[in-house]
Amino acid sequence: MQTSPLATPFPAMPPVAGVELRVARARYKAWDRCDLTFVTLAEGTSVAGVLTQSKCPSPEVEWCRKALVLGRARALVVNAGNSNAFTGHRGRQAVEAIAARVAGKAGCQPSDVFVASTGVIGVPLPVDKAEAGLSAAFDAPLCDWRAAAETIGTTDTYPKGASTTAVVDGRTVTLVGIIKGSGMIAPDMATMLGFIFTDAAVEPGFLQAALAAANAPSFSCITVDGDTSTSDTVLAFATGAAGNAPLTGEDSPGADAFRAALADLCRQLALLVVRDGEGATKLIEITVEGAESDRSAHRVAMSIANSPLVKTAIAGEDANWGRVVMAVGKAGEPAERDRLSIRFGATQVAREGLAVEGYDEAPVAAHLKGQEVEIGVDLGLSEGRATVWTCDLTHGYISINADYRS
Amino acid sequence: MQTSPLATPFPAMPPVAGVELRVARARYKAWDRCDLTFVTLAEGTSVAGVLTQSKCPSPEVEWCRKALVLGRARALVVNAGNSNAFTGHRGRQAVEAIAARVAGKAGCQPSDVFVASTGVIGVPLPVDKAEAGLSAAFDAPLCDWRAAAETIGTTDTYPKGASTTAVVDGRTVTLVGIIKGSGMIAPDMATMLGFIFTDAAVEPGFLQAALAAANAPSFSCITVDGDTSTSDTVLAFATGAAGNAPLTGEDSPGADAFRAALADLCRQLALLVVRDGEGATKLIEITVEGAESDRSAHRVAMSIANSPLVKTAIAGEDANWGRVVMAVGKAGEPAERDRLSIRFGATQVAREGLAVEGYDEAPVAAHLKGQEVEIGVDLGLSEGRATVWTCDLTHGYISINADYRS
Repeated sequence: MQTSPLATPFPAMPPVAGVELRVARARYKAWDRCDLTFVTLAEGTSVAGVLTQSKCPSPEVEWCRKALVLGRARALVVNAGNSNAFTGHRGRQAVEAIAARVAGKAGCQPSDVFVASTGVIGVPLPVDKAEAGLSAAFDAPLCDWRAAAETIGTTDTYPKGASTTAVVDGRTVTLVGIIKGSGMIAPDMATMLGFIFTDAAVEPGFLQAALAAANAPSFSCITVDGDTSTSDTVLAFATGAAGNAPLTGEDSPGADAFRAALADLCRQLALLVVRDGEGATKLIEITVEGAESDRSAHRVAMSIANSPLVKTAIAGEDANWGRVVMAVGKAGEPAERDRLSIRFGATQVAREGLAVEGYDEAPVAAHLKGQEVEIGVDLGLSEGRATVWTCDLTHGYISINADYRS
Repeated sequence: MQTSPLATPFPAMPPVAGVELRVARARYKAWDRCDLTFVTLAEGTSVAGVLTQSKCPSPEVEWCRKALVLGRARALVVNAGNSNAFTGHRGRQAVEAIAARVAGKAGCQPSDVFVASTGVIGVPLPVDKAEAGLSAAFDAPLCDWRAAAETIGTTDTYPKGASTTAVVDGRTVTLVGIIKGSGMIAPDMATMLGFIFTDAAVEPGFLQAALAAANAPSFSCITVDGDTSTSDTVLAFATGAAGNAPLTGEDSPGADAFRAALADLCRQLALLVVRDGEGATKLIEITVEGAESDRSAHRVAMSIANSPLVKTAIAGEDANWGRVVMAVGKAGEPAERDRLSIRFGATQVAREGLAVEGYDEAPVAAHLKGQEVEIGVDLGLSEGRATVWTCDLTHGYISINADYRS
């Protein structure tokens, strides 16, 4: 698979105290690459998560949802190449077997073990391969973030990670995230698989609140193809090794700084996924203003972001703004044609229901030739506002998906 | 443009008494083909219509919506190559100019003249070209249905028409329809442009009720790309020339036969549009049963029909039913993973939440090699049921839409 033209280099990322990474070959597919990631977490690690709203979630998602209630984690296992979704009792047994095996090794409860899987739907995760992979991982040397980010990927064309810091209670804490995702991306409260680690001490309740808040304007605002996965999972782990006074709520000293850092990290990770959208050649940012509410603005923006006609026009570098009008019109949200204004980049192309008089297409054409395209829509009704990100729809998407499984 | 591999030959279609067809060159684009269709209708013709629910409708749609209230028609003008949508007052003036010019020629009111346009959005329909085209059409010889069906098309790859008959009040009445549409197809109460003509005598109120009823399981159940047009219009004209006692309501003798014939005609026309879906190589019929309601079944079916991952899998003849699970899960409708069953053609692939034991992919692979693919989903909840139609998503769609306007 060719690397996405929108790829960014994997950044230098510091270790996070209390987190140990290992990878191994479970050979879930007929490939010779690491596909099992095993992460151990210091005693006392808090965990929070946002999971897919799909009505057909994977057993891993159900397992995590249940374990999140307890708020504590000691290990994470990520399988790539098989999502284990829609596999009935055999899928559930595979997750239970993994959790039991790791709990035995780590000396913790199975409910302290988080499991996530990604890949083909409908094939039970083979327990024998998982167990062999775990055995190999237990004996493997420690690895770095890049190796882990590579191992969790499937159709991803490059490894994705981001990090940041915040000062909490006089101490600098580190936040690191790795993420995978390229197709079947329209996260509904989460994205495919994302994992965030911090050495900050954070109580589970506040970690959950901060993650949910960070998720709303990041993972919930990206779409590659409008297809919400059965396995979308973002988990955040806080080891507490930084030694700050634990963050327990909004009023804890440093809570604002931590929340801001987490939000920034989530946004970075979300954009990395869009940049690896299947077949993507352009990153598209869509801002809708003047809507009746922020929620309404978000829906209109997503209607534009998921329109195959808008996405193919951008792929063709065609300033076909009529397709934006179409996508606003079909969104089912309050809109009035004769108040609608549209810009591409910095150039206003339509104002209050018709093309701008003497509109010059040259600067728009130049903007569309770039790798980052901006579409602005003003509905002219009220104050609602939202920004979402997507990519263009190209021959690459068709090629990747017309023969992915075979 | 290559003819769709799913095209069917244009059928022999009888004339409809009271309807006269003419076509001419208005040259709305730089092409040498007829692009203006002019239809005259006998005095006393009833009219009914269903129009796009887009919040950004074309001025033609608004004109028709207003004129439909009166229920009478004497002429129809269809422009191809320019939709005149999102063009403000200049677009409205173009429609008014066309209606006035035709009214003068036909000796009727402007409100008896129906206008529909299709093509690029955002460019006002040039009045001078429309007037020249109308002058040419007034002097043109009568033409047949095939010529009219060809003239209303844009990215269509073949002309589309269907006809049927019904016995009403002891007389055989004829119903004929022509339709265009290939991309931007996700009709919301209507399809791109469809025109139905009958010599039956039908009062406008009953014609409207019958058309709305026929629309629900036909045009409202097809999608090519989920993109609802600004111009979707289906109009039905009844000249009354057959001389039957006018149908005024459900209890009129022959009302059932007429409604059934109209429903059959709408279904035929709707399927012709899907068969000409941009880039289509497969016609896909999706039936959802066991839903909480028919409406819920329809939404789940549309979630499958609009999933790019499902559509690319079919294009690749890949029995990747996990993507159907994904599309059910994301639909936002009541569903339970462990009650869900799926079939491809006659072969059950998954039952109650997991793959069928010993499932043999061979008959499914054979089914997928055909041009007509059937997907059946049973949600196992209640009695709700719906069938929708779509096509696969191929490189052809990308090629057509990444450079349509330029």
